Amino acid sequence: MGKKYTAPYEVAYYDGDITGSMKIPSMLAVVVKTSEDQSILLNRDTDFIASFGLGWVITNYEIEITRLPKVGEKLAVTTQAMSYNKYFCYRNFWIHDEAGNECVLIKSTFVLMDQKNRKISSVQPEIIAPYESEKITKIYRHQKIEKIEQGKFLTYRVRFFDIDGNQHVNNAIYFNWLLDVLGYDFLTTYEPTKILVKFDKEVEYGQEVESHYELVETAEQLKTRHEIQIAGQTYCEANIEWQPRHN
Amino acid sequence: MGKKYTAPYEVAYYDGDITGSMKIPSMLAVVVKTSEDQSILLNRDTDFIASFGLGWVITNYEIEITRLPKVGEKLAVTTQAMSYNKYFCYRNFWIHDEAGNECVLIKSTFVLMDQKNRKISSVQPEIIAPYESEKITKIYRHQKIEKIEQGKFLTYRVRFFDIDGNQHVNNAIYFNWLLDVLGYDFLTTYEPTKILVKFDKEVEYGQEVESHYELVETAEQLKTRHEIQIAGQTYCEANIEWQPRHN
Repeated sequence: MGKKYTAPYEVAYYDGDITGSMKIPSMLAVVVKTSEDQSILLNRDTDFIASFGLGWVITNYEIEITRLPKVGEKLAVTTQAMSYNKYFCYRNFWIHDEAGNECVLIKSTFVLMDQKNRKISSVQPEIIAPYESEKITKIYRHQKIEKIEQGKFLTYRVRFFDIDGNQHVNNAIYFNWLLDVLGYDFLTTYEPTKILVKFDKEVEYGQEVESHYELVETAEQLKTRHEIQIAGQTYCEANIEWQPRHN
Repeated sequence: MGKKYTAPYEVAYYDGDITGSMKIPSMLAVVVKTSEDQSILLNRDTDFIASFGLGWVITNYEIEITRLPKVGEKLAVTTQAMSYNKYFCYRNFWIHDEAGNECVLIKSTFVLMDQKNRKISSVQPEIIAPYESEKITKIYRHQKIEKIEQGKFLTYRVRFFDIDGNQHVNNAIYFNWLLDVLGYDFLTTYEPTKILVKFDKEVEYGQEVESHYELVETAEQLKTRHEIQIAGQTYCEANIEWQPRHN
């Protein structure tokens, strides 16, 4: 397994939702920053990757939430490049609280995308070497994401501040669309314990997305299924498991 | 003049717009955090204020931007309670870059709002004393905000993550609505040099706002006039001056 990198983060008031829990979009933005910082440290920043005509894109998250951090908490955010094969790089993120307890574990899959034709490139040894992650032949099978059978939706217009330096919608913004559609009552009653997300296509400025969702309630588990669509095409799929909020 | 408080801040990738400049909504969130941190330091945190049945609300900003900070820059963010009269507290914020140059100056007006009836309360000596700001009798005359004469608008639905711990839309979100409506071409061509904002009424979850704007172009100055409306009522007014982007 590759090099670890840990950075401290104090949850700011603007990271908190109405209950004082850290917003999922903020959480994702903050953890991804540690991988950016590690890349800068290893002289593999965005400009270096761009010199190959490539850019990093995240295709999957598997998020296990033991508890959501609260505003004011001092966290340790850790990232580690775990392994890679011909096309996929596997990277974990952890959030620990001040007492050293694990709050969140995020498994992610990164690919290198050709900046011109937006096709996946094979992993370049010169890019990946300094992370010292293990080369494997196996392709990790992500946990299955169940499709929506009968959903409802709201539309969201992509805003100027949703797009970042590489002209695409920042990953964290998808979580805003995925969750917001569930509404105030649901989001103040339940909190997520597990989130599976798959990013299929890149949303761009000027587009309007539909955030579809469906509630699946069994005796043991409350789950939501999600799909971000544009013109009937799938851009992102997600399943989220929920429990009653503790606060 | 009152006590100064300075905190460091490094502009994260998620604070940056498509050009790598710090987003105005992020900038406001970050500067306001310094006043929250100073209040915690002086034992005047939100819970203490709430014990009087009150909460801080910002009514006005006058923002002078010498240059927008860029992603990766290490900033010093400073705040100081300047003076107060019977109802209004005047607080300044400064952003300086690593070389000590002033990037941004923000003059703001805070009031104490009764949490039950949402009316302005007179300033309580016990709340304000530790900031050591000067008591004055004069009421500061804010720079005049010109009204829209003939505008266009887009609508924005208030999202779950737009509301913060006190159940209202975070101030920084208004800047998202005010600016987004100007569109990609405008926002990548021009950058703001001066922003005047007045918050008239509080927007809440479940509401849909109209972000109205009008361009006013003279030989010397490009200016935009703004108004956030719900059902014909004014919730927020702004004037923004622009210059061509340098990057």
